[in-house]
Amino acid sequence: MKILALHGPNLDRLGEREPDIYGSARLADIVALLKERGEALGVDVESCQSNEEGELVSKIASVAGVFDGMIFNPAAYTHTSVALRDAVSASPVPCVEVHLSNVHAREEFRHKSLTAAVCIGQIMGFGVQSYILGLEAIVEHLRNQK
Amino acid sequence: MKILALHGPNLDRLGEREPDIYGSARLADIVALLKERGEALGVDVESCQSNEEGELVSKIASVAGVFDGMIFNPAAYTHTSVALRDAVSASPVPCVEVHLSNVHAREEFRHKSLTAAVCIGQIMGFGVQSYILGLEAIVEHLRNQK
Amino acid sequence: MKILALHGPNLDRLGEREPDIYGSARLADIVALLKERGEALGVDVESCQSNEEGELVSKIASVAGVFDGMIFNPAAYTHTSVALRDAVSASPVPCVEVHLSNVHAREEFRHKSLTAAVCIGQIMGFGVQSYILGLEAIVEHLRNQK
Amino acid sequence: MKILALHGPNLDRLGEREPDIYGSARLADIVALLKERGEALGVDVESCQSNEEGELVSKIASVAGVFDGMIFNPAAYTHTSVALRDAVSASPVPCVEVHLSNVHAREEFRHKSLTAAVCIGQIMGFGVQSYILGLEAIVEHLRNQK
Amino acid sequence: MKILALHGPNLDRLGEREPDIYGSARLADIVALLKERGEALGVDVESCQSNEEGELVSKIASVAGVFDGMIFNPAAYTHTSVALRDAVSASPVPCVEVHLSNVHAREEFRHKSLTAAVCIGQIMGFGVQSYILGLEAIVEHLRNQK
Amino acid sequence: MKILALHGPNLDRLGEREPDIYGSARLADIVALLKERGEALGVDVESCQSNEEGELVSKIASVAGVFDGMIFNPAAYTHTSVALRDAVSASPVPCVEVHLSNVHAREEFRHKSLTAAVCIGQIMGFGVQSYILGLEAIVEHLRNQK
Amino acid sequence: MKILALHGPNLDRLGEREPDIYGSARLADIVALLKERGEALGVDVESCQSNEEGELVSKIASVAGVFDGMIFNPAAYTHTSVALRDAVSASPVPCVEVHLSNVHAREEFRHKSLTAAVCIGQIMGFGVQSYILGLEAIVEHLRNQK
Amino acid sequence: MKILALHGPNLDRLGEREPDIYGSARLADIVALLKERGEALGVDVESCQSNEEGELVSKIASVAGVFDGMIFNPAAYTHTSVALRDAVSASPVPCVEVHLSNVHAREEFRHKSLTAAVCIGQIMGFGVQSYILGLEAIVEHLRNQK
Amino acid sequence: MKILALHGPNLDRLGEREPDIYGSARLADIVALLKERGEALGVDVESCQSNEEGELVSKIASVAGVFDGMIFNPAAYTHTSVALRDAVSASPVPCVEVHLSNVHAREEFRHKSLTAAVCIGQIMGFGVQSYILGLEAIVEHLRNQK
Amino acid sequence: MKILALHGPNLDRLGEREPDIYGSARLADIVALLKERGEALGVDVESCQSNEEGELVSKIASVAGVFDGMIFNPAAYTHTSVALRDAVSASPVPCVEVHLSNVHAREEFRHKSLTAAVCIGQIMGFGVQSYILGLEAIVEHLRNQK
Amino acid sequence: MKILALHGPNLDRLGEREPDIYGSARLADIVALLKERGEALGVDVESCQSNEEGELVSKIASVAGVFDGMIFNPAAYTHTSVALRDAVSASPVPCVEVHLSNVHAREEFRHKSLTAAVCIGQIMGFGVQSYILGLEAIVEHLRNQK
Amino acid sequence: MKILALHGPNLDRLGEREPDIYGSARLADIVALLKERGEALGVDVESCQSNEEGELVSKIASVAGVFDGMIFNPAAYTHTSVALRDAVSASPVPCVEVHLSNVHAREEFRHKSLTAAVCIGQIMGFGVQSYILGLEAIVEHLRNQK
Repeated sequence: MKILALHGPNLDRLGEREPDIYGSARLADIVALLKERGEALGVDVESCQSNEEGELVSKIASVAGVFDGMIFNPAAYTHTSVALRDAVSASPVPCVEVHLSNVHAREEFRHKSLTAAVCIGQIMGFGVQSYILGLEAIVEHLRNQK
Repeated sequence: MKILALHGPNLDRLGEREPDIYGSARLADIVALLKERGEALGVDVESCQSNEEGELVSKIASVAGVFDGMIFNPAAYTHTSVALRDAVSASPVPCVEVHLSNVHAREEFRHKSLTAAVCIGQIMGFGVQSYILGLEAIVEHLRNQK
Repeated sequence: MKILALHGPNLDRLGEREPDIYGSARLADIVALLKERGEALGVDVESCQSNEEGELVSKIASVAGVFDGMIFNPAAYTHTSVALRDAVSASPVPCVEVHLSNVHAREEFRHKSLTAAVCIGQIMGFGVQSYILGLEAIVEHLRNQK
Repeated sequence: MKILALHGPNLDRLGEREPDIYGSARLADIVALLKERGEALGVDVESCQSNEEGELVSKIASVAGVFDGMIFNPAAYTHTSVALRDAVSASPVPCVEVHLSNVHAREEFRHKSLTAAVCIGQIMGFGVQSYILGLEAIVEHLRNQK
Repeated sequence: MKILALHGPNLDRLGEREPDIYGSARLADIVALLKERGEALGVDVESCQSNEEGELVSKIASVAGVFDGMIFNPAAYTHTSVALRDAVSASPVPCVEVHLSNVHAREEFRHKSLTAAVCIGQIMGFGVQSYILGLEAIVEHLRNQK
Repeated sequence: MKILALHGPNLDRLGEREPDIYGSARLADIVALLKERGEALGVDVESCQSNEEGELVSKIASVAGVFDGMIFNPAAYTHTSVALRDAVSASPVPCVEVHLSNVHAREEFRHKSLTAAVCIGQIMGFGVQSYILGLEAIVEHLRNQK
Repeated sequence: MKILALHGPNLDRLGEREPDIYGSARLADIVALLKERGEALGVDVESCQSNEEGELVSKIASVAGVFDGMIFNPAAYTHTSVALRDAVSASPVPCVEVHLSNVHAREEFRHKSLTAAVCIGQIMGFGVQSYILGLEAIVEHLRNQK
Repeated sequence: MKILALHGPNLDRLGEREPDIYGSARLADIVALLKERGEALGVDVESCQSNEEGELVSKIASVAGVFDGMIFNPAAYTHTSVALRDAVSASPVPCVEVHLSNVHAREEFRHKSLTAAVCIGQIMGFGVQSYILGLEAIVEHLRNQK
Repeated sequence: MKILALHGPNLDRLGEREPDIYGSARLADIVALLKERGEALGVDVESCQSNEEGELVSKIASVAGVFDGMIFNPAAYTHTSVALRDAVSASPVPCVEVHLSNVHAREEFRHKSLTAAVCIGQIMGFGVQSYILGLEAIVEHLRNQK
Repeated sequence: MKILALHGPNLDRLGEREPDIYGSARLADIVALLKERGEALGVDVESCQSNEEGELVSKIASVAGVFDGMIFNPAAYTHTSVALRDAVSASPVPCVEVHLSNVHAREEFRHKSLTAAVCIGQIMGFGVQSYILGLEAIVEHLRNQK
Repeated sequence: MKILALHGPNLDRLGEREPDIYGSARLADIVALLKERGEALGVDVESCQSNEEGELVSKIASVAGVFDGMIFNPAAYTHTSVALRDAVSASPVPCVEVHLSNVHAREEFRHKSLTAAVCIGQIMGFGVQSYILGLEAIVEHLRNQK
Repeated sequence: MKILALHGPNLDRLGEREPDIYGSARLADIVALLKERGEALGVDVESCQSNEEGELVSKIASVAGVFDGMIFNPAAYTHTSVALRDAVSASPVPCVEVHLSNVHAREEFRHKSLTAAVCIGQIMGFGVQSYILGLEAIVEHLRNQK
C-alpha cells in the first residue's frame, strides 16, 4: 500500500515561518515522521511539496495507479483553488485534508474550504500530529474498502 | 488520565438514523470502542450524551478537576450554539471537536462551526474512526503539555 | 392509527400570549379539538408540549414504532434549530409543520424555516384551524401510503 | 358562497410535467375535485388558469363582488411578482396561497414568497390535497368572519 | 406635441385599492386631469393602462414616431422588470418615471428601481400631482431639446 | 406662505462643478429662479446653503414657526446622514427632496436615500427644473392641507 | 426534424434598438437566416416572437410532439423569470439558450441566468451568429440522441 | 414590589470563567449584591440561573402575577434565541437586558441582540455594576408606571 | 471629579421632537437633572450639545486634563461616524454611551453602533433615566480605577 | 489564419475524469477534431494545455503576431483568476470562452465567470461540440473583421 | 507651484493619540517637515486641518486658482464621506490621498475608501513619510502635466 | 543594502498592454529606473518578474538573508492570492506593495487587497513613479529600523 503526502504552498518553510502558528518542526521532520509512522503501519509514504497550484494539480492527476491514497495539506490554496478541488474530485484515489493550525481560530477568509467537500474528511489544529492522524485515517479507510 | 467523550443531539439514535450519512454503528458501539481504545492508550474514557444544549453546557462546566480532556461531537449545535462555544472557551480542559460525517460535503448551513474556534482542533468525515482519531489527538496533546 | 401533535416553546401560554397574533384559544383547547377531530377521522391523537429544544429532539426520537405520523409546531425553533431538523429528518415517521400565525407577514427572521424542508408540507396562518388542517393532511398522507 | 381557484403559470401542464415533483393529477382533475369537494361544503368553486402575470392581476381585480374568497397557486410567480402581491393586497376578497410541492425542499430561490405576506395563510407540500385543504381553510375563514 | 401617459399593473383599480396609500382618485380622473392640464400646456396627452408586462413592452416599442415623450408609472414592475427597462432604454422617446406613493417609505423591496436609470428623471410621493409634475417635466424637457 | 429652499454640500459650486452631470446654472441662478417662480405662485422662497451636516441639522430645527414648507437637496448627505433624516423626521414642517441629476443612473452607493423616507416625496433628474417642480409640489401640498 | 426558434421581449425591435449592443440585423433577417441555414442542415426552423412572459410559457408548453428541439433567446426574462425556467424544465423538448450580446460584459444584474440551468447549453456574444451556432448545437445534440 | 433576576447559560461559572472578560465576582456575589441593593431600594430581588434555553422560557412564562419586573442577562442566548425573544415579548412583566461585558467590543456575532428589541432597554459593559444599574432602571420604570 | 455630558445632533430639540420616541423632557431639564444628581454623587457635571460631527470631535479632543469622564449620546452619529469613534478611542478619558430610546426596537440601520466598541459600556431605552444611570456608571467606574 | 486552442487545468485528464460530467472524449481526441475541423474551415488550429495559471498567462502573452484568434477553456480558473482575465484583456488577439459542461447547472461558485467579460462570447454545455462551435465562432468573427 | 496639505479629523491630536498606531510626531512637526521638504523641491506647501467634514468640503472648493495640487489625509472621513468624494471630484486641482497607518491591517470598515477613486493615487502605512512621499508624488505629477 | 523589486503576472507585457491604464513604460525601463534610482540612494536594486503564483511564493521564501527589503507589485494576485499573503507574512524581510494604476477607480473586485495587510504600506496610482516612491519608502523604513 502506497500513500502520497502532498504539501502545498509555503510549507517548504516550516520551522522558520511563524512558529507560534505552525510549530517548530521542519518539512523534512514531517517527511521523516510520516515515513517512520508509515512503516509501523505497514505502508509506504512518499512526500511531495510544491508552491505551484498547477504543479499540485498535475501531481494529483498522476497519482492513480501509483498510490492508493493521499494526505493533502493544500495550505493557502484550501481557500481559493477550484482547480485543486477539481483535481481531487476527478481522482479515483481517496484523499484526506490536513492542516497544522486550527483555521477556524484564524482570519474569516480561512474558514471556508473549497477542497474539503471532495475529500473523505478533514483534520486540523494538531500541528505535526495532524499528519500522523491523517495517515492513520487514510490507511484505515483503505483497509475498510477492501 | 481521564477523558470525557461528549455526544450531542440525535447521537443517541446512531445506527437507525440515516445510516448512509452516519454509518451503522450505534452509540453504545462507539462508547465501547472508545473505552477499549482508551485502555490501550492507558487512559480512562467516559461517555455522556444529551440532546439538551443547556445540559451539555452544564456538563462541560463540571469537567474541570474531574477530566483532563474532552472529545466533543456537538452535532447540530455546532452550527447554532454560542452557549456551547462559551462553555468550551471558559473551560480550562482542552477539547477536540469530532464529526462522523464530512460537513463540508453537506448543506451550506453546516459549513460554519461556532465551536471549532475554541477547540484545539477538529476531525471530521471518518465515521466512528473520527472518535478514535480524536481520542489519540487529545491524549497526545495532553502528554505534550506535561 | 396514532398521531403525535408536538407543540414547541411558549405554546403552553397560548390564549394569554399576544392574542392578536396567536388567537384566544388555549393549548388545552387545541389538544381537545385535535382529539375530537381525530376521533371523527378514526385516529388517536396525543399531544405533547415542551419549551426545551433537546426534549423535543428526544420526543421525536421516541416516536418510531409508537406513532404513525406527527403534526409539529416548532414555534420559535422553526427558525434556529438544526437539531430539530436533524431529528425530524432521521425519523421514519412522516411529519407536517403547522403554524398558528402567517410567519411571512411578520419579522424577516421568521421567513426562513429550517424544519420545513424535512417535513412533508407546511400549513400556516389559520390559527387553531392550522392544526385541524395539519391533522387531515397527515391522515390523508398516511392512508395514501398504504 | 362562491370561491375562485386561481392557477398560475405552467399549471395547465400538470400530469405531464415532472410528475415526481408535481404528481400525476391533471388540472382538469383538480378542477373537478374542487367542484365536488365544494359541493360537499356547500360552496360553489370556479377555476381559472393563466400563464400570464397580467391576466392573473386582472382576474384578481375582478373578483370583488363576484367571489367571496380565493385559493391561489401563483406557482413560479410566487417568487418574482410584486404585481400579484399588490393585486391580492388591494383586493377585499381574502386569499389562501397553496402549492403542490414543498418549496422549502427545493432550490433556494423558491424559499421566498412575495405573495404569502398578503394572504391569510399558506399550505404546501400535499400535492392535490393542498387545494382541498386550502378550500376548507378559506370556507372556514369566511364562515368565522360572519 | 404628443405625450403618452402609460399606467402599469393594478392602476386600473385606483380609488378602490388601498386609498390610504394611493389616494381616492380613479384612473379616469387622472386621465382627464392629464388631458386638461396638457391642453393648458399646449400638448396632447393620451393615456394607456395595462396589467401585462409584455403589453407595456409592446406599447413602448410602438411609441417612436407617434409620441414625443412618455410619462410612465410602472407600478409593481418598477422593481422586477428588466424587460421594461430594456424597452425604455431602446426607445428614442424620452420618458419620466412617476409614482403616486413615496416608495422609500414602504417595504424594502420597493426601494430599488430597475427602470429609473433609463428614464430622464423620477417623481414620487405626491399622489395625482406626481403625474401633473411629470407632465410638466417632460414638456419642459422636450422644449429644451429643440 | 414661506418656503425654505435648503441646499446641501458642494452646491455652492454649481456651474463650475462637473457641468455634464449638474448643468451650467449657478446656485445664484437657482436662488433667483425659485424667488421669481415663488412670486408667480404667491409664496415667498428663501434659500440657504451649507456644506456642514450639523449646520443643516440646526437650520431644519429652526424652521418650525418661520417657514411653512421646505425643498431640500441634501446632495451627498442623502446617502450617509442619519442626522439629517432625524432632523427632517422631527420637524413639523413638510419637506420635498430634490436632486439635479438622476441618481439611479450613477454609482451604486447613490441609489440609497436615507432622507427620502421622511419627506413627502422626491423629484430627481431634471436639472434646475427639479427645484421648480419641487416648489410647485410643496405649495400644492400645503394648499391641500388647509 | 423541426426546430422552434423562440425570441423573447424587445427582440421585435432588433436593428432599430441600440445597434451598438445588438447589431443592425432585424428579426426578419434572423428568421430568414435560420430558415436558410436550417435547410442546409436538413431541418425545418420556425420562428416565434413574443414580449409576453406568459405567452412564451404557453408556447413552450405546446412544443412537445410538434418540434424536436428549441433555440431560445429569453432576452430580459433570462434574469427574472422562474416561470420560463419551469416551462423549459417541464418540457421534454431539449433547448439551447442564445444571446446576441455578451451579458457578462454588461450590468451586474444580467450576469445571472435563471433559464440556463435547465437548458442543454448557452451561447452568447456573437450577434446573429449566436443563433446559427445554437441551431447547429441543437441539431447535433438531437442527432447524437438517436 | 418583587423583581426577578434571571441569569442565562454559563453564568453559574462566573469568577472562574475568563475573569479578564467577565470579572472576578461569582454568581453568588451578584445574587447577594442584588438582594442587598434591592433592600436599599425597598424591593425584593430573587435570582434564578439556568443553562437551558427552554427552562428560561418556562421561568419567564411563570413570572406574571408573581414578579413585577425582570432583569435578564441572556448571555449567549442573546444572539441566537428567538424562543426567549418570544417569551419576553409574550410576558406582561417588563424586562431590562443586562450584560457584564461590552459585547460591541467583542466578536461580530455578539453585536446582534434578538432579545433587546422586546425589552425596555439594555445596559452593558460595567461588570457587576450592570446588574445594579439594571435593577435601578427596572425599579424606576415600575414606579413611573404607577 | 468632573464629568462632561456630551449631547449629539437633534438633541437640542428634545421635548418638541417626536415625544412618543424621545419623551417630553427638554435638554435643559436633562442638563439640570444631571447637575443635581451629580451634586448628590459629589461630582461636577457639565453639559455640551452640538449638531456638528466635527465640533463634537474637537470637544472630545479637549477633554483630557479638564474632565475625568464622559457620558456621550452620539444620537444619529452613533451609526455613521468613524470620526467620533476615533476621537473617543484616542481620548484617555473613559466614556459611557447613552441613548434615550431602545435603538434595537427601531429601524435596522440603528442597530449598529460604531462608537460603542470604544466606550466602557452602553445604556439605552430608559429615556432621561439613561443619563442618570450613565452618570452613576462613569462615577462608579472612576472610583474603582483609583 | 492561425487559431490557438488553449486548455486549462485538469483538461489533460479528460475521458478518465468524471465522464458523466465531461464526456468520454480525451484531450487528444479534441485536439485532433479541432485540427480536422480547422482544415475544413481553411484555418490552422494548434492546441496547448497547462495546469499552471501563470503558464497560461505567459502563453496568452505570446500569442500576438503568431495567432489570429483564441479558443479558451479556462476550466476551474474561470471562476478564480483575475490574472487570466488581465492576460486576455491585454491581448490584441480576440478570444472565445468555451466549456464542456453547463456550469449554470452545477455548484453556485461555478456560475460566475471572471474571464467571460473580456472575451467576445461564451459557449457552454455541448461537450466536445462546444469547441467546434467555438472554432466556428472565432473564424467567423475574424472573417467579419476583415 | 503651491500645494495644499489638508488634514482631516483627529489629526490635530497626533502625537498624543494612540502613538502605537499613528507614531509620535505632532501635526506641527508634519507641517514643518512638509514646508521644509517643499522648499527642497521648489514648491510652497501650506497646511490646513479641520475636524469638520463641511469645512473640509469648503476648503477644497476654494482651492482652484490658489493651489496647484493637494495632499489629503481624510482620516476617518475616508470611509464615510460622499461629500468629500464629491468635493475632490468636482475640483480641477489634482489630489493625492495619504494615510499614516496601513488601513488594510486594521478594522474591516477601514478597508473601503470613498475618496481614493477620485484621487490620482493613494499612499499609506509609512507614518510621517506617507506625507513626504505624497508631496513628491503630487509635485512629480504636476511637472509631468506641463 | 539590497532591495528586491518583485513584479507579478502580466507585468512582462507593460508598454504594449492597455497603455491608457498602465502607461507606456516597459518593464525593462522600470528595472533600469529602479537600478539608477537605487544607486542614487546608495542601495542595490534587483528585479524579478514571474507570471506564476507559486514561483513568486518561492522567490519571497528565498529572500531572507539575501535582500534587506522588498517592493512588490502582486498585480492580479493582489486580489486572489492567500498564498502570497502567507509568503510575505512569513518572511522576516519587510515589504512595500505598489501598483501602477489606482485600483480604487477600477472594477469592484480590484478594491480588496489580500496582500496589503501584511506589508508595511501600499502606494498606488502614480504609474512608474509608484515604484520610485516604493523604493524610497522601503529604504527609509530600513534606515529607521537600524
